[in-house]
Amino acid sequence: MNLTPSFNVDETITVLKLFMKTYVKNAKSTSVILGLSGGVDSAVIAVLCQQVFGKKNTHCLFLPDETTPENDKGDVLVLKDQFDLTVEEHNITSLVNTFVKITKCSDERLVQANIKARLRMVLLYEHANKTHSLVCGTSNKSELLIGYFTKYGDAGVDFMPLGDVYKTQVWEIAKRLDLPKSIIEKPPTAGLWKDQTDEKELRMSYDVLDRILVGLERKMEVDAIAQFLDIAKKDVERIHEMRIVSQHKRSMPLVPKVGLRTPGLDWRSPVQLG
Amino acid sequence: MNLTPSFNVDETITVLKLFMKTYVKNAKSTSVILGLSGGVDSAVIAVLCQQVFGKKNTHCLFLPDETTPENDKGDVLVLKDQFDLTVEEHNITSLVNTFVKITKCSDERLVQANIKARLRMVLLYEHANKTHSLVCGTSNKSELLIGYFTKYGDAGVDFMPLGDVYKTQVWEIAKRLDLPKSIIEKPPTAGLWKDQTDEKELRMSYDVLDRILVGLERKMEVDAIAQFLDIAKKDVERIHEMRIVSQHKRSMPLVPKVGLRTPGLDWRSPVQLG
Repeated sequence: MNLTPSFNVDETITVLKLFMKTYVKNAKSTSVILGLSGGVDSAVIAVLCQQVFGKKNTHCLFLPDETTPENDKGDVLVLKDQFDLTVEEHNITSLVNTFVKITKCSDERLVQANIKARLRMVLLYEHANKTHSLVCGTSNKSELLIGYFTKYGDAGVDFMPLGDVYKTQVWEIAKRLDLPKSIIEKPPTAGLWKDQTDEKELRMSYDVLDRILVGLERKMEVDAIAQFLDIAKKDVERIHEMRIVSQHKRSMPLVPKVGLRTPGLDWRSPVQLG
Repeated sequence: MNLTPSFNVDETITVLKLFMKTYVKNAKSTSVILGLSGGVDSAVIAVLCQQVFGKKNTHCLFLPDETTPENDKGDVLVLKDQFDLTVEEHNITSLVNTFVKITKCSDERLVQANIKARLRMVLLYEHANKTHSLVCGTSNKSELLIGYFTKYGDAGVDFMPLGDVYKTQVWEIAKRLDLPKSIIEKPPTAGLWKDQTDEKELRMSYDVLDRILVGLERKMEVDAIAQFLDIAKKDVERIHEMRIVSQHKRSMPLVPKVGLRTPGLDWRSPVQLG
Protein backbone atom coordinates (compact mmCIF):
# COMPACT_ATOMS: atom_id res chain seq x y z
CA MET A 1 0.00 0.00 0.00
CA ASN A 2 1.14 3.47 -0.82
CA LEU A 3 -0.39 6.69 0.48
CA THR A 4 1.12 8.81 -2.27
CA PRO A 5 -1.91 9.76 -4.35
CA SER A 6 -1.94 7.90 -7.67
CA PHE A 7 -1.64 10.32 -10.51
CA ASN A 8 -1.03 10.58 -14.22
CA VAL A 9 -0.03 14.15 -14.94
CA ASP A 10 -0.82 14.21 -18.68
CA GLU A 11 -4.18 12.53 -18.28
CA THR A 12 -5.05 14.94 -15.47
CA ILE A 13 -4.20 17.98 -17.57
CA THR A 14 -6.44 16.61 -20.35
CA VAL A 15 -9.33 16.03 -17.94
CA LEU A 16 -8.97 19.50 -16.40
CA LYS A 17 -8.93 21.26 -19.76
CA LEU A 18 -11.91 19.30 -21.08
CA PHE A 19 -13.85 20.09 -17.90
CA MET A 20 -13.03 23.80 -18.11
CA LYS A 21 -14.05 24.03 -21.73
CA THR A 22 -17.31 22.15 -21.22
CA TYR A 23 -18.26 23.98 -18.04
CA VAL A 24 -17.85 27.42 -19.57
CA LYS A 25 -19.64 26.38 -22.75
CA ASN A 26 -22.58 24.91 -20.79
CA ALA A 27 -22.85 28.17 -18.87
CA LYS A 28 -23.19 29.89 -22.28
CA SER A 29 -20.08 31.95 -21.61
CA THR A 30 -16.83 32.22 -23.52
CA SER A 31 -14.44 33.92 -21.12
CA VAL A 32 -13.06 33.50 -17.62
CA ILE A 33 -11.53 35.63 -14.91
CA LEU A 34 -9.15 34.46 -12.21
CA GLY A 35 -7.17 35.89 -9.32
CA LEU A 36 -3.42 35.59 -9.77
CA SER A 37 -1.40 35.60 -6.54
CA GLY A 38 2.12 34.71 -7.58
CA GLY A 39 1.61 31.22 -6.17
CA VAL A 40 1.64 27.95 -8.03
CA ASP A 41 -2.11 27.15 -7.95
CA SER A 42 -3.24 30.33 -9.65
CA ALA A 43 -0.28 30.18 -12.07
CA VAL A 44 -1.36 26.69 -13.16
CA ILE A 45 -4.96 27.85 -13.58
CA ALA A 46 -3.88 30.92 -15.56
CA VAL A 47 -1.84 28.85 -18.00
CA LEU A 48 -4.56 26.21 -18.40
CA CYS A 49 -7.19 28.92 -19.02
CA GLN A 50 -4.93 30.62 -21.54
CA GLN A 51 -4.51 27.30 -23.37
CA VAL A 52 -8.24 26.51 -23.31
CA PHE A 53 -9.85 29.92 -23.82
CA GLY A 54 -7.09 31.96 -25.45
CA LYS A 55 -5.52 35.26 -24.44
CA LYS A 56 -8.56 37.35 -25.35
CA ASN A 57 -10.86 35.32 -23.12
CA THR A 58 -8.60 34.84 -20.10
CA HIS A 59 -8.49 37.79 -17.73
CA CYS A 60 -5.99 37.53 -14.88
CA LEU A 61 -6.40 39.90 -11.96
CA PHE A 62 -3.40 40.40 -9.69
CA LEU A 63 -4.65 41.93 -6.42
CA PRO A 64 -1.65 42.50 -4.12
CA ASP A 65 -1.69 44.44 -0.88
CA GLU A 66 1.01 45.89 1.32
CA THR A 67 1.99 42.45 2.68
CA THR A 68 2.56 40.93 -0.78
CA PRO A 69 6.29 40.11 -1.05
CA GLU A 70 8.34 41.58 -3.89
CA ASN A 71 9.17 38.16 -5.32
CA ASP A 72 5.46 37.44 -5.90
CA LYS A 73 5.22 40.61 -7.97
CA GLY A 74 8.30 39.60 -9.92
CA ASP A 75 6.98 36.10 -10.47
CA VAL A 76 3.68 37.40 -11.82
CA LEU A 77 5.60 39.49 -14.35
CA VAL A 78 7.76 36.54 -15.41
CA LEU A 79 4.67 34.36 -15.81
CA LYS A 80 2.87 37.07 -17.77
CA ASP A 81 5.79 37.43 -20.18
CA GLN A 82 6.47 33.74 -20.58
CA PHE A 83 2.85 32.84 -21.37
CA ASP A 84 1.70 36.14 -22.88
CA LEU A 85 -1.08 36.53 -20.28
CA THR A 86 -3.45 39.48 -19.98
CA VAL A 87 -2.84 40.64 -16.41
CA GLU A 88 -4.50 43.58 -14.72
CA GLU A 89 -2.92 44.68 -11.45
CA HIS A 90 -4.86 46.42 -8.74
CA ASN A 91 -3.43 47.05 -5.28
CA ILE A 92 -6.17 46.51 -2.70
CA THR A 93 -4.40 48.19 0.25
CA SER A 94 -6.44 51.39 0.17
CA LEU A 95 -9.64 49.42 -0.31
CA VAL A 96 -8.90 47.23 2.72
CA ASN A 97 -7.83 50.21 4.82
CA THR A 98 -10.98 52.10 3.93
CA PHE A 99 -13.12 49.10 4.76
CA VAL A 100 -11.38 48.65 8.10
CA LYS A 101 -11.68 52.36 8.92
CA ILE A 102 -15.30 52.82 7.87
CA THR A 103 -16.49 49.69 9.63
CA LYS A 104 -14.20 50.12 12.66
CA CYS A 105 -13.58 46.42 12.27
CA SER A 106 -11.55 44.11 14.44
CA ASP A 107 -7.77 44.33 14.04
CA GLU A 108 -7.49 40.62 14.75
CA ARG A 109 -5.21 39.12 12.11
CA LEU A 110 -7.58 36.37 11.04
CA VAL A 111 -10.57 38.71 10.76
CA GLN A 112 -8.59 41.03 8.51
CA ALA A 113 -7.28 38.13 6.45
CA ASN A 114 -10.85 37.00 5.81
CA ILE A 115 -11.86 40.53 4.82
CA LYS A 116 -9.06 40.67 2.26
CA ALA A 117 -10.03 37.33 0.74
CA ARG A 118 -13.69 38.39 0.54
CA LEU A 119 -12.96 41.81 -0.95
CA ARG A 120 -10.89 40.06 -3.63
CA MET A 121 -13.95 37.93 -4.40
CA VAL A 122 -16.12 41.06 -4.74
CA LEU A 123 -13.57 42.53 -7.14
CA LEU A 124 -13.35 39.37 -9.24
CA TYR A 125 -17.14 39.21 -9.58
CA GLU A 126 -17.36 42.89 -10.42
CA HIS A 127 -15.00 42.23 -13.33
CA ALA A 128 -16.85 39.04 -14.22
CA ASN A 129 -20.23 40.83 -14.29
CA LYS A 130 -18.78 43.61 -16.43
CA THR A 131 -17.24 41.25 -18.98
CA HIS A 132 -19.85 38.46 -18.77
CA SER A 133 -17.14 36.05 -17.68
CA LEU A 134 -17.11 33.20 -15.16
CA VAL A 135 -14.88 33.26 -12.09
CA CYS A 136 -12.45 30.34 -12.21
CA GLY A 137 -11.33 29.18 -8.75
CA THR A 138 -7.73 28.26 -7.92
CA SER A 139 -8.23 26.25 -4.72
CA ASN A 140 -6.62 22.81 -4.55
CA LYS A 141 -7.93 19.64 -2.90
CA SER A 142 -5.50 19.74 0.04
CA GLU A 143 -6.62 23.15 1.25
CA LEU A 144 -10.29 22.47 0.50
CA LEU A 145 -10.26 19.28 2.58
CA ILE A 146 -8.83 20.93 5.68
CA GLY A 147 -10.83 24.16 5.31
CA TYR A 148 -7.68 26.19 4.70
CA PHE A 149 -9.55 28.92 2.80
CA THR A 150 -12.05 31.70 3.39
CA LYS A 151 -15.73 30.80 2.99
CA TYR A 152 -17.19 33.15 0.34
CA GLY A 153 -13.66 34.50 -0.18
CA ASP A 154 -11.07 32.63 -2.26
CA ALA A 155 -13.54 29.74 -2.45
CA GLY A 156 -16.29 32.05 -3.72
CA VAL A 157 -16.03 31.11 -7.39
CA ASP A 158 -18.05 29.55 -10.22
CA PHE A 159 -15.99 26.40 -10.82
CA MET A 160 -12.89 24.78 -9.34
CA PRO A 161 -10.70 22.84 -11.76
CA LEU A 162 -8.13 21.94 -9.09
CA GLY A 163 -10.69 20.96 -6.44
CA ASP A 164 -9.78 17.27 -6.74
CA VAL A 165 -6.04 17.83 -7.24
CA TYR A 166 -3.75 17.60 -4.20
CA LYS A 167 -1.14 20.33 -3.69
CA THR A 168 1.74 17.92 -4.38
CA GLN A 169 0.03 17.07 -7.69
CA VAL A 170 -0.38 20.75 -8.56
CA TRP A 171 3.42 20.99 -8.42
CA GLU A 172 3.70 18.11 -10.89
CA ILE A 173 1.29 19.84 -13.26
CA ALA A 174 3.24 23.08 -12.89
CA LYS A 175 6.47 21.31 -13.89
CA ARG A 176 4.81 19.69 -16.91
CA LEU A 177 3.45 23.11 -18.00
CA ASP A 178 6.97 24.56 -17.71
CA LEU A 179 6.05 27.18 -15.15
CA PRO A 180 8.88 29.41 -13.87
CA LYS A 181 11.08 27.54 -11.40
CA SER A 182 10.77 30.33 -8.83
CA ILE A 183 6.99 29.82 -8.71
CA ILE A 184 7.26 26.07 -8.32
CA GLU A 185 9.97 26.19 -5.67
CA LYS A 186 8.78 29.01 -3.42
CA PRO A 187 7.17 28.04 -0.09
CA PRO A 188 3.37 28.05 -0.48
CA THR A 189 1.55 30.83 1.35
CA ALA A 190 -2.05 32.00 1.56
CA GLY A 191 -0.56 35.49 1.47
CA LEU A 192 -2.86 36.77 4.16
CA TRP A 193 -0.15 38.28 6.36
CA LYS A 194 3.57 38.95 6.19
CA ASP A 195 5.96 35.98 6.29
CA GLN A 196 3.10 33.51 6.55
CA THR A 197 3.79 30.13 4.99
CA ASP A 198 1.29 27.28 4.82
CA GLU A 199 3.67 24.56 5.98
CA LYS A 200 4.74 26.62 9.03
CA GLU A 201 1.12 27.20 9.94
CA LEU A 202 0.08 23.61 9.30
CA ARG A 203 3.17 22.37 11.15
CA MET A 204 3.83 19.78 8.47
CA SER A 205 4.86 19.55 4.81
CA TYR A 206 2.30 19.20 2.04
CA ASP A 207 3.93 15.88 1.25
CA VAL A 208 2.87 14.53 4.65
CA LEU A 209 -0.47 16.35 4.65
CA ASP A 210 -1.47 14.89 1.29
CA ARG A 211 -0.62 11.39 2.38
CA ILE A 212 -2.68 11.80 5.56
CA LEU A 213 -5.58 13.06 3.44
CA VAL A 214 -5.33 10.08 1.09
CA GLY A 215 -5.44 7.78 4.11
CA LEU A 216 -8.51 9.54 5.47
CA GLU A 217 -10.19 9.45 2.05
CA ARG A 218 -9.60 5.69 2.04
CA LYS A 219 -11.33 5.58 5.43
CA MET A 220 -8.19 4.30 7.17
CA GLU A 221 -8.04 4.62 10.96
CA VAL A 222 -6.04 7.51 12.39
CA ASP A 223 -3.75 5.01 14.17
CA ALA A 224 -3.03 3.11 10.98
CA ILE A 225 -2.19 6.26 9.04
CA ALA A 226 0.20 7.45 11.78
CA GLN A 227 1.90 4.08 11.90
CA PHE A 228 2.15 3.77 8.16
CA LEU A 229 3.64 7.26 7.73
CA ASP A 230 5.74 6.94 10.89
CA ILE A 231 4.43 10.20 12.33
CA ALA A 232 2.78 11.17 15.62
CA LYS A 233 -0.83 10.13 16.04
CA LYS A 234 -1.76 13.61 17.26
CA ASP A 235 -0.71 15.11 13.92
CA VAL A 236 -3.05 12.80 12.03
CA GLU A 237 -5.78 13.53 14.57
CA ARG A 238 -5.33 17.25 14.07
CA ILE A 239 -5.81 16.97 10.30
CA HIS A 240 -8.76 14.61 10.79
CA GLU A 241 -10.36 17.17 13.10
CA MET A 242 -9.67 20.05 10.66
CA ARG A 243 -11.39 18.05 7.96
CA ILE A 244 -14.46 17.43 10.09
CA VAL A 245 -14.96 20.94 11.45
CA SER A 246 -14.52 22.50 8.01
CA GLN A 247 -17.30 20.41 6.44
CA HIS A 248 -19.65 23.43 6.49
CA LYS A 249 -17.22 25.31 4.23
CA ARG A 250 -17.60 22.66 1.53
CA SER A 251 -21.40 22.49 1.57
CA MET A 252 -24.31 24.73 0.73
CA PRO A 253 -25.91 26.38 3.75
CA LEU A 254 -28.17 23.85 5.49
CA VAL A 255 -31.94 24.19 4.96
CA PRO A 256 -34.58 22.44 7.09
CA LYS A 257 -37.13 20.54 5.04
CA VAL A 258 -40.67 21.76 5.66
CA GLY A 259 -42.43 21.52 2.27
CA LEU A 260 -43.64 18.60 0.11
CA ARG A 261 -42.92 15.69 2.43
CA THR A 262 -40.82 12.81 1.18
CA PRO A 263 -40.96 9.74 3.42
CA GLY A 264 -37.65 9.19 5.16
CA LEU A 265 -36.33 12.65 4.42
CA ASP A 266 -36.40 14.91 7.44
CA TRP A 267 -34.75 18.23 8.21
CA ARG A 268 -31.47 16.62 9.15
CA SER A 269 -30.86 15.94 5.45
CA PRO A 270 -29.77 18.96 3.47
CA VAL A 271 -32.43 19.85 0.97
CA GLN A 272 -31.49 19.78 -2.68
CA LEU A 273 -33.19 22.83 -4.08
CA GLY A 274 -33.14 22.70 -7.79
CA MET B 1 -55.33 19.07 -7.12
CA ASN B 2 -54.28 22.34 -5.61
CA LEU B 3 -51.06 24.19 -6.36
CA THR B 4 -51.19 26.23 -3.17
CA PRO B 5 -48.31 24.77 -1.14
CA SER B 6 -49.61 22.71 1.78
CA PHE B 7 -48.57 24.24 5.02
CA ASN B 8 -49.13 24.12 8.74
CA VAL B 9 -47.87 27.36 10.18
CA ASP B 10 -47.44 26.25 13.80
CA GLU B 11 -45.70 23.02 12.89
CA THR B 12 -43.40 24.92 10.52
CA ILE B 13 -42.43 27.41 13.22
CA THR B 14 -41.61 24.50 15.54
CA VAL B 15 -39.48 22.78 12.89
CA LEU B 16 -37.61 26.00 12.05
CA LYS B 17 -36.82 26.78 15.69
CA LEU B 18 -35.66 23.24 16.42
CA PHE B 19 -33.44 23.30 13.33
CA MET B 20 -31.92 26.66 14.27
CA LYS B 21 -31.19 25.56 17.81
CA THR B 22 -29.66 22.26 16.74
CA TYR B 23 -27.61 23.71 13.92
CA VAL B 24 -25.99 26.37 16.10
CA LYS B 25 -25.37 23.89 18.91
CA ASN B 26 -23.76 21.38 16.51
CA ALA B 27 -21.49 24.14 15.23
CA LYS B 28 -20.41 24.65 18.87
CA SER B 29 -21.64 28.23 18.80
CA THR B 30 -24.22 30.00 20.94
CA SER B 31 -24.97 33.19 19.05
CA VAL B 32 -26.10 34.34 15.62
CA ILE B 33 -25.92 37.42 13.46
CA LEU B 34 -28.34 38.42 10.74
CA GLY B 35 -28.91 41.24 8.30
CA LEU B 36 -32.14 43.14 8.90
CA SER B 37 -33.56 44.94 5.87
CA GLY B 38 -36.97 46.15 6.94
CA GLY B 39 -38.54 43.37 4.87
CA VAL B 40 -40.63 40.46 6.09
CA ASP B 41 -38.08 37.62 5.63
CA SER B 42 -35.39 39.15 7.83
CA ALA B 43 -38.02 40.32 10.34
CA VAL B 44 -39.28 36.74 10.71
CA ILE B 45 -35.72 35.44 11.10
CA ALA B 46 -34.89 38.12 13.69
CA VAL B 47 -37.91 37.25 15.82
CA LEU B 48 -37.31 33.49 15.54
CA CYS B 49 -33.63 33.96 16.50
CA GLN B 50 -34.60 36.15 19.43
CA GLN B 51 -37.01 33.44 20.63
CA VAL B 52 -34.48 30.63 20.18
CA PHE B 53 -31.20 32.26 21.23
CA GLY B 54 -32.33 35.20 23.37
CA LYS B 55 -31.57 38.88 23.11
CA LYS B 56 -27.93 38.56 24.20
CA ASN B 57 -27.14 36.03 21.47
CA THR B 58 -29.06 37.55 18.57
CA HIS B 59 -27.25 40.37 16.80
CA CYS B 60 -29.22 42.19 14.11
CA LEU B 61 -27.33 44.35 11.67
CA PHE B 62 -29.31 46.94 9.73
CA LEU B 63 -27.20 48.02 6.73
CA PRO B 64 -29.12 50.66 4.76
CA ASP B 65 -27.75 52.77 1.95
CA GLU B 66 -28.94 55.93 0.22
CA THR B 67 -31.65 54.04 -1.69
CA THR B 68 -33.24 52.55 1.44
CA PRO B 69 -36.74 54.05 1.80
CA GLU B 70 -37.67 55.89 4.99
CA ASN B 71 -40.48 53.44 5.80
CA ASP B 72 -37.94 50.58 6.01
CA LYS B 73 -36.00 52.52 8.62
CA GLY B 74 -39.19 53.20 10.53
CA ASP B 75 -40.25 49.55 10.33
CA VAL B 76 -36.90 48.37 11.69
CA LEU B 77 -37.37 50.69 14.69
CA VAL B 78 -40.90 49.45 15.31
CA LEU B 79 -39.75 45.83 15.10
CA LYS B 80 -36.82 46.53 17.43
CA ASP B 81 -39.10 48.09 20.03
CA GLN B 82 -41.86 45.52 19.78
CA PHE B 83 -39.53 42.51 20.14
CA ASP B 84 -36.74 44.15 22.17
CA LEU B 85 -34.12 43.29 19.53
CA THR B 86 -30.45 44.24 19.63
CA VAL B 87 -30.02 46.19 16.39
CA GLU B 88 -26.85 47.84 15.19
CA GLU B 89 -27.27 50.26 12.29
CA HIS B 90 -24.53 50.98 9.83
CA ASN B 91 -25.08 52.96 6.64
CA ILE B 92 -23.03 51.41 3.84
CA THR B 93 -23.27 54.31 1.38
CA SER B 94 -19.75 55.62 1.92
CA LEU B 95 -18.37 52.08 1.83
CA VAL B 96 -20.07 51.36 -1.50
CA ASN B 97 -19.05 54.72 -2.95
CA THR B 98 -15.45 54.20 -1.91
CA PHE B 99 -15.45 50.73 -3.41
CA VAL B 100 -16.90 52.01 -6.66
CA LYS B 101 -14.43 54.90 -6.79
CA ILE B 102 -11.30 52.95 -5.90
CA THR B 103 -12.10 50.11 -8.29
CA LYS B 104 -13.50 52.37 -11.03
CA CYS B 105 -16.20 49.76 -11.31
CA SER B 106 -19.07 49.57 -13.73
CA ASP B 107 -22.00 51.89 -13.07
CA GLU B 108 -24.38 49.27 -14.44
CA ARG B 109 -27.27 48.95 -12.01
CA LEU B 110 -27.05 45.20 -11.60
CA VAL B 111 -23.27 45.21 -11.07
CA GLN B 112 -23.64 47.78 -8.31
CA ALA B 113 -26.53 45.88 -6.76
CA ASN B 114 -24.36 42.77 -6.57
CA ILE B 115 -21.53 44.76 -5.00
CA LYS B 116 -23.85 46.05 -2.28
CA ALA B 117 -25.14 42.58 -1.47
CA ARG B 118 -21.59 41.21 -1.31
CA LEU B 119 -20.25 44.04 0.83
CA ARG B 120 -23.11 43.39 3.26
CA MET B 121 -21.96 39.75 3.42
CA VAL B 122 -18.39 40.86 4.21
CA LEU B 123 -19.71 43.09 7.01
CA LEU B 124 -21.89 40.34 8.49
CA TYR B 125 -18.95 37.91 8.54
CA GLU B 126 -16.65 40.52 10.07
CA HIS B 127 -19.13 40.85 12.93
CA ALA B 128 -19.59 37.08 13.08
CA ASN B 129 -15.81 36.47 13.28
CA LYS B 130 -15.45 39.10 15.99
CA THR B 131 -18.25 37.70 18.13
CA HIS B 132 -17.79 34.00 17.24
CA SER B 133 -21.34 33.92 15.89
CA LEU B 134 -22.88 32.18 12.91
CA VAL B 135 -24.45 34.10 10.04
CA CYS B 136 -28.14 33.23 9.75
CA GLY B 137 -29.52 33.63 6.22
CA THR B 138 -32.88 35.18 5.47
CA SER B 139 -33.49 33.92 1.91
CA ASN B 140 -36.80 32.19 1.21
CA LYS B 141 -37.53 29.25 -1.09
CA SER B 142 -39.25 31.32 -3.81
CA GLU B 143 -36.24 33.55 -4.42
CA LEU B 144 -33.75 30.70 -4.04
CA LEU B 145 -35.53 28.60 -6.67
CA ILE B 146 -35.50 31.33 -9.31
CA GLY B 147 -32.01 32.60 -8.46
CA TYR B 148 -33.38 35.94 -7.31
CA PHE B 149 -30.39 36.64 -5.04
CA THR B 150 -26.69 37.45 -5.25
CA LYS B 151 -24.28 34.50 -5.25
CA TYR B 152 -21.90 34.99 -2.31
CA GLY B 153 -23.97 38.04 -1.35
CA ASP B 154 -27.27 37.71 0.51
CA ALA B 155 -27.01 33.93 0.02
CA GLY B 156 -23.50 33.89 1.52
CA VAL B 157 -24.51 32.63 4.97
CA ASP B 158 -23.99 29.67 7.31
CA PHE B 159 -27.54 28.31 7.45
CA MET B 160 -30.90 29.15 5.88
CA PRO B 161 -33.96 28.47 8.03
CA LEU B 162 -36.41 29.78 5.39
CA GLY B 163 -34.75 27.99 2.46
CA ASP B 164 -37.68 25.58 2.11
CA VAL B 165 -40.40 28.14 2.94
CA TYR B 166 -42.19 29.88 0.05
CA LYS B 167 -42.64 33.65 0.23
CA THR B 168 -46.42 33.35 0.64
CA GLN B 169 -45.75 31.04 3.61
CA VAL B 170 -43.30 33.53 5.14
CA TRP B 171 -46.18 35.99 5.27
CA GLU B 172 -48.28 33.42 7.17
CA ILE B 173 -45.47 32.92 9.68
CA ALA B 174 -45.08 36.69 10.04
CA LYS B 175 -48.78 37.01 10.88
CA ARG B 176 -48.60 34.21 13.43
CA LEU B 177 -45.58 35.87 15.07
CA ASP B 178 -47.52 39.16 15.28
CA LEU B 179 -45.06 41.15 13.21
CA PRO B 180 -45.94 44.81 12.54
CA LYS B 181 -48.65 45.10 9.90
CA SER B 182 -46.60 47.59 7.88
CA ILE B 183 -43.84 44.97 7.43
CA ILE B 184 -46.28 42.27 6.36
CA GLU B 185 -48.20 44.47 3.96
CA LYS B 186 -45.46 46.39 2.18
CA PRO B 187 -44.51 45.31 -1.36
CA PRO B 188 -41.48 42.98 -1.19
CA THR B 189 -38.24 44.42 -2.56
CA ALA B 190 -34.65 43.26 -2.77
CA GLY B 191 -33.79 46.87 -1.93
CA LEU B 192 -31.04 47.03 -4.50
CA TRP B 193 -32.18 50.20 -6.22
CA LYS B 194 -34.79 52.90 -5.70
CA ASP B 195 -38.46 51.99 -6.20
CA GLN B 196 -37.59 48.42 -7.09
CA THR B 197 -40.25 45.88 -6.13
CA ASP B 198 -39.96 42.15 -6.65
CA GLU B 199 -43.40 41.65 -8.15
CA LYS B 200 -42.86 44.45 -10.69
CA GLU B 201 -39.54 42.92 -11.71
CA LEU B 202 -40.88 39.37 -11.81
CA ARG B 203 -43.98 40.57 -13.66
CA MET B 204 -46.21 38.42 -11.47
CA SER B 205 -47.40 38.19 -7.88
CA TYR B 206 -45.71 35.88 -5.36
CA ASP B 207 -49.04 34.10 -5.13
CA VAL B 208 -48.77 33.03 -8.78
CA LEU B 209 -45.01 32.49 -8.64
CA ASP B 210 -45.28 30.12 -5.69
CA ARG B 211 -47.97 28.08 -7.36
CA ILE B 212 -45.87 27.78 -10.53
CA LEU B 213 -42.93 26.66 -8.40
CA VAL B 214 -45.03 24.03 -6.63
CA GLY B 215 -46.11 22.72 -10.02
CA LEU B 216 -42.51 22.54 -11.23
CA GLU B 217 -41.43 20.85 -7.99
CA ARG B 218 -44.14 18.24 -8.65
CA LYS B 219 -42.62 17.77 -12.12
CA MET B 220 -45.78 18.94 -13.85
CA GLU B 221 -45.48 20.00 -17.50
CA VAL B 222 -45.28 23.72 -18.24
CA ASP B 223 -48.50 23.43 -20.30
CA ALA B 224 -50.39 21.78 -17.49
CA ILE B 225 -49.31 24.39 -14.95
CA ALA B 226 -50.35 27.24 -17.26
CA GLN B 227 -53.72 25.63 -17.91
CA PHE B 228 -54.34 24.82 -14.27
CA LEU B 229 -53.51 28.35 -13.11
CA ASP B 230 -55.18 29.95 -16.13
CA ILE B 231 -52.10 32.00 -17.02
CA ALA B 232 -50.00 32.41 -20.17
CA LYS B 233 -47.67 29.54 -21.01
CA LYS B 234 -44.80 31.94 -21.61
CA ASP B 235 -44.97 33.10 -17.98
CA VAL B 236 -44.57 29.56 -16.71
CA GLU B 237 -41.78 28.98 -19.23
CA ARG B 238 -39.99 32.09 -18.02
CA ILE B 239 -40.02 30.86 -14.41
CA HIS B 240 -38.98 27.37 -15.51
CA GLU B 241 -36.03 28.86 -17.39
CA MET B 242 -35.04 31.06 -14.42
CA ARG B 243 -35.03 27.98 -12.25
CA ILE B 244 -32.78 26.07 -14.63
CA VAL B 245 -30.22 28.79 -15.34
CA SER B 246 -29.87 29.63 -11.65
CA GLN B 247 -28.96 26.07 -10.66
CA HIS B 248 -25.28 27.05 -10.30
CA LYS B 249 -26.26 29.54 -7.58
CA ARG B 250 -27.70 26.74 -5.45
CA SER B 251 -24.74 24.35 -5.76
CA MET B 252 -21.12 24.24 -4.69
CA PRO B 253 -18.67 25.16 -7.47
CA LEU B 254 -18.25 22.16 -9.78
CA VAL B 255 -15.06 20.11 -9.42
CA PRO B 256 -13.83 17.58 -12.02
CA LYS B 257 -13.04 14.19 -10.51
CA VAL B 258 -9.43 13.18 -11.12
CA GLY B 259 -8.38 11.32 -7.94
CA LEU B 260 -9.27 7.92 -6.47
CA ARG B 261 -11.46 6.51 -9.23
CA THR B 262 -14.94 5.31 -8.41
CA PRO B 263 -16.56 3.27 -11.17
CA GLY B 264 -19.45 5.13 -12.73
CA LEU B 265 -18.46 8.47 -11.26
CA ASP B 266 -16.92 10.75 -13.85
CA TRP B 267 -16.19 14.45 -13.89
CA ARG B 268 -19.72 15.33 -14.86
CA SER B 269 -20.83 14.44 -11.34
CA PRO B 270 -19.99 17.07 -8.76
CA VAL B 271 -17.49 15.68 -6.31
CA GLN B 272 -18.51 15.53 -2.69
CA LEU B 273 -15.39 16.64 -0.87
CA GLY B 274 -15.82 15.88 2.74
